[in-house]
Amino acid sequence: MKSKLPQVGISIFSQMTALANEHGAINLSQGFPEFDAPDYLKSQLSHYVGEGQNQYSPSAGVPSLQAQVAALIERRYQVSVSGQEQITVTSGATEALFVAIQAIVSEGDEVIVFDPAYDSYEPAIELAGGKAVHIALTAPHYQIDWQQVAASINPNTRAIIINTPHNPSAKTLKPSDLEQLKQLLNQHDLLLISDEVYEHITFDGLPHLSALTDPALFERAFVISSFGKTFHSTGWKMGYCVAPKQMTVEFRKIHQYVTFSSFTPAQLALADMLAEHPEHVDELSGFYQQKRDVLVKALASSRFTLLPSEGTYFLLLDYSEISELDDVAFCRYLVEEVGVAAVPLSVFYQQAPKDKVIRLCFAKENQTLEEAAKRLCQL
Amino acid sequence: MKSKLPQVGISIFSQMTALANEHGAINLSQGFPEFDAPDYLKSQLSHYVGEGQNQYSPSAGVPSLQAQVAALIERRYQVSVSGQEQITVTSGATEALFVAIQAIVSEGDEVIVFDPAYDSYEPAIELAGGKAVHIALTAPHYQIDWQQVAASINPNTRAIIINTPHNPSAKTLKPSDLEQLKQLLNQHDLLLISDEVYEHITFDGLPHLSALTDPALFERAFVISSFGKTFHSTGWKMGYCVAPKQMTVEFRKIHQYVTFSSFTPAQLALADMLAEHPEHVDELSGFYQQKRDVLVKALASSRFTLLPSEGTYFLLLDYSEISELDDVAFCRYLVEEVGVAAVPLSVFYQQAPKDKVIRLCFAKENQTLEEAAKRLCQL
Ligand SMILES: CSCCC(=O)C(=O)O
Ligand SMILES: CSCCC(=O)C(=O)O
Repeated sequence: MKSKLPQVGISIFSQMTALANEHGAINLSQGFPEFDAPDYLKSQLSHYVGEGQNQYSPSAGVPSLQAQVAALIERRYQVSVSGQEQITVTSGATEALFVAIQAIVSEGDEVIVFDPAYDSYEPAIELAGGKAVHIALTAPHYQIDWQQVAASINPNTRAIIINTPHNPSAKTLKPSDLEQLKQLLNQHDLLLISDEVYEHITFDGLPHLSALTDPALFERAFVISSFGKTFHSTGWKMGYCVAPKQMTVEFRKIHQYVTFSSFTPAQLALADMLAEHPEHVDELSGFYQQKRDVLVKALASSRFTLLPSEGTYFLLLDYSEISELDDVAFCRYLVEEVGVAAVPLSVFYQQAPKDKVIRLCFAKENQTLEEAAKRLCQL
Repeated sequence: MKSKLPQVGISIFSQMTALANEHGAINLSQGFPEFDAPDYLKSQLSHYVGEGQNQYSPSAGVPSLQAQVAALIERRYQVSVSGQEQITVTSGATEALFVAIQAIVSEGDEVIVFDPAYDSYEPAIELAGGKAVHIALTAPHYQIDWQQVAASINPNTRAIIINTPHNPSAKTLKPSDLEQLKQLLNQHDLLLISDEVYEHITFDGLPHLSALTDPALFERAFVISSFGKTFHSTGWKMGYCVAPKQMTVEFRKIHQYVTFSSFTPAQLALADMLAEHPEHVDELSGFYQQKRDVLVKALASSRFTLLPSEGTYFLLLDYSEISELDDVAFCRYLVEEVGVAAVPLSVFYQQAPKDKVIRLCFAKENQTLEEAAKRLCQL
């Protein structure tokens, strides 16, 4: 059969995790925590499974979880949204991204994405018949040139996808970015997909600037988040999308035919977790900042140049003083010879720049981070 | 924003379940069991959650579940498939259907579907840029006229979707259907999506004829099944797709960007369940046949005409001796005045025939079925 995605292979995350397992390397490639979901969350899940809450939830999500997410948004951002009419629970943020893109993009539409870009955006755009227009950001600052963005807008442009805190660069958007974004969206009547799956992980007191907080942005935005990142439960595949009412109607039309609904007992358990343990979310940035600092400190004596990590659970390393290899080859060398799996940055670009940069995930136990750093310091 | 699915509203299942709850009616509309998932399955799920198996599984599924599904297929159908290369675990059969359709259909392609058709097929085809070509089957036999199918094939035709046992008609395909299907697929080089989510629920000794069992069908088929239907756990949203190796490669490319992976602990628990309790699957037809018979017996004195249910957990009732209302109005009357929620058949058609038929789900406790029947017998 003809391929619908001829350019696409197996995702870099699957590839690197498989290689890490094969070589017994420390896996700092695919982003997932080494530590477990909170005990309370886990025991509530078992409680609801035991109690027999094992049939379909409403397609948009269980009402208690919709309400708790609305309360979270109110508490964190002082923004009021309707759980029932604006929040849709999805099978991971990946599903939310996919559905939002299907809801927006038709044959011939263009969507602006910033490289390095999360790997699912472009295939989702292509499956909807659209085209991703790539704007490359480069090390070490990964700053958006908004004039370049403006210049790439044409009558086919339909939407812009932003991601803050940004995976893989670990940078956050600043107020001036959102100002310029807003102007462009308004001027050209574009929609926004705001991928905020690391919204609760920012460092050094930097605020997360959510598209939810600016009405002029939110009126045209699908804002996407992830319970997996927030509650150390990436394998539960739970995320959500917040959007204006009419956009939510369109989102749900598609969601109901992509997965229909998500794991019911996990939704009920997450609602309880949000209600009973608000401190978990509030403490997440501090928790991960400490992880970042452990890794940064342990790599201080290495020959890598560490790029600033402002959020997410990733840290970028520039290895140009260590090797001439391109980043894919260097990552292969690392996993095979050094015993550390990382992700090459070039795979997140349509046209990779000459940067020699790799990504490490620091959502790991301190001793794992220290052992990985020890190996990397030998280079 | 412009709608990608302008014809689509809220799924009939969501609508009827909401109405049933609103009116306190017995809900025999949306198909889900009133009884719970098996204790062993539930306790294994809690076990893996407790043990900390809460991060991403491989995108194609945990190997133990892939292996157990391969073993199930071997045991039930004496067909050998590779778990690793041919079985992909999905977030419900709905996701599997959606992904298979995206993998097959491109702009301008046509896909033949048989009405009454499961409601997700057409939107999924449209989102892929294709067109559903509807062939209507009518009460009481819902038989496929294969000459009509042949006549509707043209150079744009890309695939045929079959569903056996069939929701909502509760009919099963017969050997002669599969023979004629096979000829058409071969002659016109078409692909097949075989929706077999009720594969383990057939009655009166009727065999389930899986597309897996005929190499000439399976070489061009995505075969889709559901753990939710088999293990009374529709809210876990677990399904899978079996396909030839190269088709599986294409399926997985898309699946990895739609949901990436499914709830990890449920996958591990389902693998154990399949390994330790093969009798559950083997006893499922008998279990549901008894349910069907309870409902059929309880409705014997009603003025409905009962259509034969050969499989699935649905029973069709012809109400033409009871009411002149169309089926949507009749279902509204039933839920509001009689206290029973059912699904009107016309919503599964592009062009509904004059049949006056509704669908009841009998995946319920005997006393629920009897109480519902008592109410229906008063008409
Ligand atoms: C869905 S696997 C990818 C996990 C992740 O978000 C990352 O590593 O960037
Ligand atoms: C995903 S809700 C629909 C359940 C079902 O398969 C049906 O009622 O036909």
